Amino acid sequence: MASQNSFRIEYDTFGELKVPNDKYYGAQTVRSTMNFKIGGVTERMPIPVIKAFGILKRAAAEVNQDYGLDPKIANAIMKAADEVAEGKLNDHFPLVVWQTGSGTQTNMNVNEVISNRAIEMLGGELGSKKPVHPNDHVNKSQSSNDTFPTAMHIAAAIEVHEVLLPGLQKLHDALDAKSKEFAQIIKIGRTHTQDAVPLTLGQEFSGYVQQVKYATTRIKGAMPRIYELAAGGTAVGTGLNTRIGFAEKVAAKVAALTGLPFVTAPNKFEALAAHDALVELSGAMNTTACSLMKIANDIRFLGSGPRSGKVNPTQCEAVTMVAAQVMGNHVAVTIGGSNGHFELNVFKPLMIKNVLHSARLLGDASVSFTENCVVGIQANTERINKLMNESLMLVTALNPHIGYDKAAKIAKTAHKNGSTLKATAIELGYLTAEQFDEWVKPKDMLGPK
Amino acid sequence: MASQNSFRIEYDTFGELKVPNDKYYGAQTVRSTMNFKIGGVTERMPIPVIKAFGILKRAAAEVNQDYGLDPKIANAIMKAADEVAEGKLNDHFPLVVWQTGSGTQTNMNVNEVISNRAIEMLGGELGSKKPVHPNDHVNKSQSSNDTFPTAMHIAAAIEVHEVLLPGLQKLHDALDAKSKEFAQIIKIGRTHTQDAVPLTLGQEFSGYVQQVKYATTRIKGAMPRIYELAAGGTAVGTGLNTRIGFAEKVAAKVAALTGLPFVTAPNKFEALAAHDALVELSGAMNTTACSLMKIANDIRFLGSGPRSGKVNPTQCEAVTMVAAQVMGNHVAVTIGGSNGHFELNVFKPLMIKNVLHSARLLGDASVSFTENCVVGIQANTERINKLMNESLMLVTALNPHIGYDKAAKIAKTAHKNGSTLKATAIELGYLTAEQFDEWVKPKDMLGPK
Amino acid sequence: MASQNSFRIEYDTFGELKVPNDKYYGAQTVRSTMNFKIGGVTERMPIPVIKAFGILKRAAAEVNQDYGLDPKIANAIMKAADEVAEGKLNDHFPLVVWQTGSGTQTNMNVNEVISNRAIEMLGGELGSKKPVHPNDHVNKSQSSNDTFPTAMHIAAAIEVHEVLLPGLQKLHDALDAKSKEFAQIIKIGRTHTQDAVPLTLGQEFSGYVQQVKYATTRIKGAMPRIYELAAGGTAVGTGLNTRIGFAEKVAAKVAALTGLPFVTAPNKFEALAAHDALVELSGAMNTTACSLMKIANDIRFLGSGPRSGKVNPTQCEAVTMVAAQVMGNHVAVTIGGSNGHFELNVFKPLMIKNVLHSARLLGDASVSFTENCVVGIQANTERINKLMNESLMLVTALNPHIGYDKAAKIAKTAHKNGSTLKATAIELGYLTAEQFDEWVKPKDMLGPK
Amino acid sequence: MASQNSFRIEYDTFGELKVPNDKYYGAQTVRSTMNFKIGGVTERMPIPVIKAFGILKRAAAEVNQDYGLDPKIANAIMKAADEVAEGKLNDHFPLVVWQTGSGTQTNMNVNEVISNRAIEMLGGELGSKKPVHPNDHVNKSQSSNDTFPTAMHIAAAIEVHEVLLPGLQKLHDALDAKSKEFAQIIKIGRTHTQDAVPLTLGQEFSGYVQQVKYATTRIKGAMPRIYELAAGGTAVGTGLNTRIGFAEKVAAKVAALTGLPFVTAPNKFEALAAHDALVELSGAMNTTACSLMKIANDIRFLGSGPRSGKVNPTQCEAVTMVAAQVMGNHVAVTIGGSNGHFELNVFKPLMIKNVLHSARLLGDASVSFTENCVVGIQANTERINKLMNESLMLVTALNPHIGYDKAAKIAKTAHKNGSTLKATAIELGYLTAEQFDEWVKPKDMLGPK
Repeated sequence: MASQNSFRIEYDTFGELKVPNDKYYGAQTVRSTMNFKIGGVTERMPIPVIKAFGILKRAAAEVNQDYGLDPKIANAIMKAADEVAEGKLNDHFPLVVWQTGSGTQTNMNVNEVISNRAIEMLGGELGSKKPVHPNDHVNKSQSSNDTFPTAMHIAAAIEVHEVLLPGLQKLHDALDAKSKEFAQIIKIGRTHTQDAVPLTLGQEFSGYVQQVKYATTRIKGAMPRIYELAAGGTAVGTGLNTRIGFAEKVAAKVAALTGLPFVTAPNKFEALAAHDALVELSGAMNTTACSLMKIANDIRFLGSGPRSGKVNPTQCEAVTMVAAQVMGNHVAVTIGGSNGHFELNVFKPLMIKNVLHSARLLGDASVSFTENCVVGIQANTERINKLMNESLMLVTALNPHIGYDKAAKIAKTAHKNGSTLKATAIELGYLTAEQFDEWVKPKDMLGPK
Repeated sequence: MASQNSFRIEYDTFGELKVPNDKYYGAQTVRSTMNFKIGGVTERMPIPVIKAFGILKRAAAEVNQDYGLDPKIANAIMKAADEVAEGKLNDHFPLVVWQTGSGTQTNMNVNEVISNRAIEMLGGELGSKKPVHPNDHVNKSQSSNDTFPTAMHIAAAIEVHEVLLPGLQKLHDALDAKSKEFAQIIKIGRTHTQDAVPLTLGQEFSGYVQQVKYATTRIKGAMPRIYELAAGGTAVGTGLNTRIGFAEKVAAKVAALTGLPFVTAPNKFEALAAHDALVELSGAMNTTACSLMKIANDIRFLGSGPRSGKVNPTQCEAVTMVAAQVMGNHVAVTIGGSNGHFELNVFKPLMIKNVLHSARLLGDASVSFTENCVVGIQANTERINKLMNESLMLVTALNPHIGYDKAAKIAKTAHKNGSTLKATAIELGYLTAEQFDEWVKPKDMLGPK
Repeated sequence: MASQNSFRIEYDTFGELKVPNDKYYGAQTVRSTMNFKIGGVTERMPIPVIKAFGILKRAAAEVNQDYGLDPKIANAIMKAADEVAEGKLNDHFPLVVWQTGSGTQTNMNVNEVISNRAIEMLGGELGSKKPVHPNDHVNKSQSSNDTFPTAMHIAAAIEVHEVLLPGLQKLHDALDAKSKEFAQIIKIGRTHTQDAVPLTLGQEFSGYVQQVKYATTRIKGAMPRIYELAAGGTAVGTGLNTRIGFAEKVAAKVAALTGLPFVTAPNKFEALAAHDALVELSGAMNTTACSLMKIANDIRFLGSGPRSGKVNPTQCEAVTMVAAQVMGNHVAVTIGGSNGHFELNVFKPLMIKNVLHSARLLGDASVSFTENCVVGIQANTERINKLMNESLMLVTALNPHIGYDKAAKIAKTAHKNGSTLKATAIELGYLTAEQFDEWVKPKDMLGPK
Repeated sequence: MASQNSFRIEYDTFGELKVPNDKYYGAQTVRSTMNFKIGGVTERMPIPVIKAFGILKRAAAEVNQDYGLDPKIANAIMKAADEVAEGKLNDHFPLVVWQTGSGTQTNMNVNEVISNRAIEMLGGELGSKKPVHPNDHVNKSQSSNDTFPTAMHIAAAIEVHEVLLPGLQKLHDALDAKSKEFAQIIKIGRTHTQDAVPLTLGQEFSGYVQQVKYATTRIKGAMPRIYELAAGGTAVGTGLNTRIGFAEKVAAKVAALTGLPFVTAPNKFEALAAHDALVELSGAMNTTACSLMKIANDIRFLGSGPRSGKVNPTQCEAVTMVAAQVMGNHVAVTIGGSNGHFELNVFKPLMIKNVLHSARLLGDASVSFTENCVVGIQANTERINKLMNESLMLVTALNPHIGYDKAAKIAKTAHKNGSTLKATAIELGYLTAEQFDEWVKPKDMLGPK
């Protein structure tokens, strides 16, 4: 490519534009960078969306070839699209999320980049639109209105499968291992942040395991709607300017390229005008955030001493911050999702940005939390035993033997005097030391009889 | 029962209390009304929770009888519990949502009411706790910590099945009928709130149908976790003070009583300490709220004239207000759900209040919207035709015949002159009137070829 | 009034309606109850809105008399309106929040009740609209579009002044008293839920005092926009069908009746079409909810034992549930506030319902929390001292004397051996017992030097 | 500096670490990058926080010099800190937001960078900590716990003053100019998305002007708490290890450096443990988001044709997406703000990230919207007149002349026949053409009489 700092002149309907010679994008992309100076580089369209577009454009080119597109052109598009899908051309996508709500400008950015890269491969001149035209060829049988939601679903599905679910699985397995490791450690339970009857540390962790297991169930449960692709709906959902079968074939190609069970959306009007599927997925992640908040909070409090800290609270802090972010993102997705009008929802970039953000943060945080905290959790058994044996709640084991009233009196007296249940019980003359040891066995308080 | 305005004296651990003689509740309920003066009568524990407690207490009494509870006592409990379940004793549950976060006081309120009503049936004295003790008998093998979440799940499941799903089904069917009724009415589409290519009004409504259909799918998808009952977990999830099999039997009885597929929760620690299942259900309702917001917004805008209004926008307004409330409720549920600590989440009353609120509002609003708006929607075909025929977007049909550039020039010229596409096209000499009629057929623009 | 169960026949544009004879409302109210069966009695328009309408209608009648309304009619309206304002006619307002988004039906409900009550006072026949017509007289110079937002602001301002601010003041004063009471109790600080350097319990509580003080500042800071009344804007904000000066006079009357500094809104278009002022007030309450969540969480954790609980965690639980509700309500208000269109926001009933709910809950919960928890908090000084003296964080006091490295070694060794800093320091030979006592004085660690 | 790809070896308490030779950061920063692999480069600590740290460290060095710090060291720190404040060392801050919730690692990153840059200026060796030690000198009299919240407030205040308020002012002025430009254009109002009585387009825009004006008022109203700085509170708020006066002097220096009225926080315990001030500011931005959502929605609908579009809806789409994001961010900030514990809130990086995000997006979007949409709005007076004259709502002007009943009949008949009010009125024999023209004057319907 040409040296940096040099420009080529291109045109759009508003006039002449300078396009950097070392960039594959064209006039429409440059125009967008001028019209939407909102938020700077950190606000760029997420790379997973760009990669998903690469997959879609490749699939569409294959299907278009089936329907008659010149194989030379189709092949060049496929190669260029593959490079986009592989992330080789990331620097050529400068547009921010805060653009047209249909994502039109990013679709055009993709069309321009693929067209120019294909032209380059075929020995043509950048910006000439020959022999590969960004609209007529790269965008053939497509519209921003159906490609962008298709890319949203592809990107979300990949992020879920590559980052979110593996992260949760890793966390699940580590918690499950800890639950088993701690199966014999009896501790005093806590309800209302106060002492309660005993359970094992393994039982306590088994609750976390269940939460993460169900998080996975919930996210998987949302995926069938995500696997539905809008491609083939074109501008309003009717499929105008596509061929019968195009929609189904594109979905099948995308499924083949990604290994994920994508299908064509059964109703394209819904697929363009509403993005309930993203709200649903965001909702599943919101529930996951609640689960992680609970788990991380427990772990930092359980390790909070005094002097008992054997966990790394900073990882818990990162996890709970991520959870709060995911809950906030979910509200943004919800508001965006509720505000579609007629044939088009125009909060698309906002919605996918937040969904991808949540998926990535939850997945990454789960891995970080697992590796840097969960796997290293050690039970401070000495202190656990001490707290359990000091606990007045064990008195409940005496109820069936000496009655509720006497048991309660023991607990109250012990509390007032700061002494142990055993000493107090004996002192009050309600039982012998042997009886106490016989009747108060935390090990017998861990399940039904 | 005794006359109003007279009191009986009862006691709790803090001292003497006056209990109205015409009420079945007792000292602990009175104490709670004194300690939690927050919000007034509209803030009372929702009746569906009270009824669900009736079902649970009846089921528990049956199972307790299996395990040895005196049949006379068990039967009296069952009868009294049935009255609670049937809503006959609603006036005896004065407690507000803003109480102990475990719902302990409402569990005690239920125990007191059932105990006193059973005592009354057996000819005993109210407040005597004989022969039916609120704790020893009505609450046998139970704890607030497992009964309240059990009642939450029963209440939510019933509200979903009796109010929410039927309401959505009714709306779905009405929209579906409209979609079919409007199958032949071609209209101009609208994207970015601007004219777009045509579709049928039936196609447009089919998107709404799909949204409501999926709303039902989403809600049903959340139910398996709602059908899991915490009963049998008692204070911390271990099941201390229950018998082996108690949990399973209670769930089976509740299932039999309600006709819903309740099962015992596979992990009681999760079932007490987290309420992810309610966050999940709330999330499904949040997505439903997005769908209804979109549909109601469209319908009010489509009927917004000038002079075209044949819908009742006030119903749309009620629906969109309900949608906003459900989204807000969802955040409250999310925050409550994320803040459990150790063995107990203490945001239980808040969570179930909001979940029930959302379910009821969505269900009722769907019915109201259907009956008072959707079924009466009439297409103003004259205006629809006029707007379509005036639309410049039909020019896209000329692209394959005269090329994109000429087509665009026709549209621009027609827009500038305020004239029709047809007149402009002929005037510009690009085609004949016959060609225009031949090529520009909205009917041919409704799907792929 | 006539006996229950009998009806009078009235008419609206849709036909004949049965109106209960013992009710002052009329046909339009009955019609609304038929068209909006959403949510049941707990969802009725909040009583503070009804009372505010009473104030407004009274003020408007006074001003209308100034502009020529027959004094006999005006006076009857004023008396009837006063009864509404005093809550004497609450049973005559059956409409739910989920109605027309402009609150039109509640305005009509008010007009009907006041008209009929005034007619009754003047010896006329209910439903005859003579001599006091609900529209021509009670609603004179008014529209639902300006009366409902006026009633919203009046209701919000009164609830803030009568419930919210006094509740916060009470909490502030109780926390402040505790902060002073605890001024000399030195405790170990906690950051990251881990031991930190010391502070006094009084200093810790002073942070809460500051939070509640600023909560009051924030709420008061939102009030100037709440004091602006829409009355006089009529249907779209122009003031059509009012007289010059009407708006200003009504605001002045309302100010006189309430003792609050109401003024006429400087821009009526904004006052009808947007309710940013309610979003702002809700935002101030949202911040307050954060503050109360922090305080209540701290207090329950500080009293969470083992064995140290001298606070009532159930009050903390009620407060934190209220906080979560307020945060959820705020999202509902935000969504409603963002969705106005053109000359009218039609999420009015939703918005005011949630604002009043938050104000009442925060105010009531503050009082309940104060009376049943804060005032009774006692410091467990024995345990506080023990934890502080055992804390390894006091080692930081040695840094300037023996250097960071040796100090760190003392802490690590003490932690490993489970022994005290003092014993370890002496054992390691870094200092004498006297030096330790000289250098490690928590009292000297409470501020800058 | 040394060539890329080469490393120096440094140590932290966990062992040896490779630090890139071309970077000023040190071991603790590298450690954080290893422990917190969450979210990638787009998730880095926002640059405004880094710059704010530069300002703070410079101010602290000046004050420390006053209290005795070696002037050579102090001066080198100041120079290095200035470079950080000017953004010259942005590449040296690789840490992500999802780290320790106190921001400790970013504080250490700043200390390391400033220390090494100062060392370099003084001819020392990077990583040697001599003669400028990151802790002993750069962080002198400071703790992460007070520096990070100080940097949060400085960063927020600067972003508000440099981006948010100027953006809103620009938007305000453009809307105000349009309001004046459109002062004479009478249009039909719209309530419930239906025709209503007339107003001028200028009046309609004046509502938007008021909303933006109050947005500014609200944001400014939140600033006094933002201007309060935590610096001087050190680890728990007591100010341990600082000197009397340090806090006040640092705040004064920061005020002098920024030109903003910073003061030392009156209560440092609140300033470390709660970040209500950020929740409050976020709330003001949330209200602003509602305002912008309303305005942008109106403008896109007003320009939505058919054929009337003279606005650029894509800018409206960007604005409404930004609004949704800000509302979501606000929930994240709220949740973070409510979850502080004891002496420290550990959601600091999350909170400031979202606050800065909202401020930047709102400010930038306001400018983009103004420049690319608002200033170019043209009234389609021809269509506005046509719609107004066709509107049946003008019939309300006849009420005082021919009575409500006849007027209503005219409107209904005209609606049924699709004819004009005037023709219908004459046809019905209710008035003459002259009377109609005399009585129905939209110009007379724009205000009170």
